[in-house]
Amino acid sequence: MPLLNFQFHCQAQCSHSHARAGQWTTPHGVVETPRFMPVGTTATVKGVTPAQLVDTGAQMVLANTYHLHLQPGESIVAKAGGLHSFMQWSGPLLTDSGGFQVFSLSGLRKIQEDGVTFRSPRDGRTIHLTPEKSIEIQNQLGADVIMAFDECPPYPATREEVTAATDRTYRWLQRCIAAHQRSDQALFGIVQGGTFLDLRAKTAQSLVELDLPGYAIGGVSVGEPAAFIQAIVAATAPLLPVDKPRYLMGVGTYREMAQAIAAGIDLFDCVIPTRLARHGAVLSQGHRWNIKNAQYREDFTPLDDTCPCYTCQTFSRAYLNHLVRSREVLAYTLLSIHNITELVRFTQRIRASILDDRFTEEFAPYLQPDPLPSEEPFVSSLLQQS
Amino acid sequence: MPLLNFQFHCQAQCSHSHARAGQWTTPHGVVETPRFMPVGTTATVKGVTPAQLVDTGAQMVLANTYHLHLQPGESIVAKAGGLHSFMQWSGPLLTDSGGFQVFSLSGLRKIQEDGVTFRSPRDGRTIHLTPEKSIEIQNQLGADVIMAFDECPPYPATREEVTAATDRTYRWLQRCIAAHQRSDQALFGIVQGGTFLDLRAKTAQSLVELDLPGYAIGGVSVGEPAAFIQAIVAATAPLLPVDKPRYLMGVGTYREMAQAIAAGIDLFDCVIPTRLARHGAVLSQGHRWNIKNAQYREDFTPLDDTCPCYTCQTFSRAYLNHLVRSREVLAYTLLSIHNITELVRFTQRIRASILDDRFTEEFAPYLQPDPLPSEEPFVSSLLQQS
Ligand SMILES: [Zn+2]
Ligand SMILES: [Zn+2]
Repeated sequence: MPLLNFQFHCQAQCSHSHARAGQWTTPHGVVETPRFMPVGTTATVKGVTPAQLVDTGAQMVLANTYHLHLQPGESIVAKAGGLHSFMQWSGPLLTDSGGFQVFSLSGLRKIQEDGVTFRSPRDGRTIHLTPEKSIEIQNQLGADVIMAFDECPPYPATREEVTAATDRTYRWLQRCIAAHQRSDQALFGIVQGGTFLDLRAKTAQSLVELDLPGYAIGGVSVGEPAAFIQAIVAATAPLLPVDKPRYLMGVGTYREMAQAIAAGIDLFDCVIPTRLARHGAVLSQGHRWNIKNAQYREDFTPLDDTCPCYTCQTFSRAYLNHLVRSREVLAYTLLSIHNITELVRFTQRIRASILDDRFTEEFAPYLQPDPLPSEEPFVSSLLQQS
Repeated sequence: MPLLNFQFHCQAQCSHSHARAGQWTTPHGVVETPRFMPVGTTATVKGVTPAQLVDTGAQMVLANTYHLHLQPGESIVAKAGGLHSFMQWSGPLLTDSGGFQVFSLSGLRKIQEDGVTFRSPRDGRTIHLTPEKSIEIQNQLGADVIMAFDECPPYPATREEVTAATDRTYRWLQRCIAAHQRSDQALFGIVQGGTFLDLRAKTAQSLVELDLPGYAIGGVSVGEPAAFIQAIVAATAPLLPVDKPRYLMGVGTYREMAQAIAAGIDLFDCVIPTRLARHGAVLSQGHRWNIKNAQYREDFTPLDDTCPCYTCQTFSRAYLNHLVRSREVLAYTLLSIHNITELVRFTQRIRASILDDRFTEEFAPYLQPDPLPSEEPFVSSLLQQS
């Protein structure tokens, strides 16, 4: 199927790494990469209005197929005119396939070649999710980018388990491609392969041959040490085509994003900014700290005096400390606005440094790989392959 | 103490009722009356940013002395430069005295002539609140209007109980006046008297003699039937000076506001718009209904197509139904924005009708008093006096 209105243009390439700055055109606007994408699980980034979200600098937002299938159901979203109209986000949107959530329902689900059967934790009804069904749901939701239905093995998993999952994911991808009906939605393939770098490389090559409009690296940030994520991304991302966007799923920490960008990744998503906000945690200039601490009770400075967000431009740490201690819902909103702005801004700053070819110099403190913990399972396999 | 920068100007007087439209100048701006004031208990209107609050049309906001004394404490608010600066609300603010909350802590508190002793439900420490202490806290908080520390008797209460509370409230008011230190804060007196209209009238007269910058009617909406509120306000409000603002505390329903405006009330506060929002309840064109109901799942119209609020201008009922069913915090924010806008707009519409002298005609459906329930306690006393 010919794909309409998508184009990835590489604007600048770092001289000392695989990092690149890009302009990615989608039917709902341009995404300047690298860029962090906030997560709007149930068609809302928790506690943040679309108007506030625009102001964070977020250009693209992710929503979860699994959650939207359970509530309100894709037919209601389709009747609303699609997800953009339903949630009133006019920029680019991406939906995941539902696979990650379904495979996290351990004990509640049964995996077969056809697909996965599980009980809805919402109302107990039995749901059968297949590659075809995932694509049909995502076609109805109508995001700009949709994801292939994949099997995400847990960590740790044996080589045999990961091989079986990776092979099945490839067969499911072919079914997803066949099922996909809309020329205004780009279907991304997902490179699986667990912590086995040769399986990652083999999968990447087989996916590249399918000439998809974009590629994701999945199955990371599932409990493995940070050094493993870094090694997997460093080994896999450079194998993907230079003229297509590359998306690292579920990663949103400073170090992992910087190192993944050095490997050539363009897009990230993570629930971390809103999840941290719920606990009073603040991301700022590479650090994480908690606004609830007593030392901020009489601190009348902003969270981060370099931050352009509404929260930092308007309120003091003392006020935010008070809101968190009072368990006020506004704390959640204001800290989410700041944390999202901070992670988007981190990727924007990296982007600017790539355009000036100062990336590896300016972000050097983030680019030292974490040491590999020797007692972790599969560490020898990982080292051997890298 | 001479009072700076306060002036109440009556712009129009209804020909068929005591209703009036006013312009009330305060140090932080003009309030166009009649007007509903949203409640920002802990220095935040729950779930709503100050920027969103401005857009609701709210001109004046109330905060609670009791809650702010417990957390963060008035000294931190004072160090922030006062409540306006702390919560970043640049318009007029009002603080209550803390009396209402303290007297609601039945069993936990001890009332003496000097004041009230109670255990903090927050951390168990013993707190002694007196008229002087309430004013000192409110002087530190720095709202434009502060309220006298009063004893609010429960409903039902005997004539003897109410007389004792009313007399003590008068003695406490004199101590409040003596303690008040700031010429940029207007101290309002509160007319108590329970359901005994002669006690209400006597109190009103004694307060008027003190020539205060504004008057409130308190001790209503404490569990008595709506007809009692209407009778109390109708009997009391006309006794208050025409050149001072009149504030009915804790009332925010359509009918009670319309009837109180007909009696000459200018200002209202109530937690109802945010409290209803928490349960998915919507106020619209005189009615209350719940957006969670199944009939709204596929309703792609706004909550109220005549409403100018962000929620109605942006989102469908189907989306709001989905957010409430998903227990998303954004539902709370969006419904609060609408409900506050709706109640402010109701008082704005009444104001416009008074300026055109169409009030009693246009709002006739709201102005029929509720029937007095014959089996309620003290109903014969109330009828006899009215
Ligand atoms: Zn910020
Ligand atoms: Zn509205």
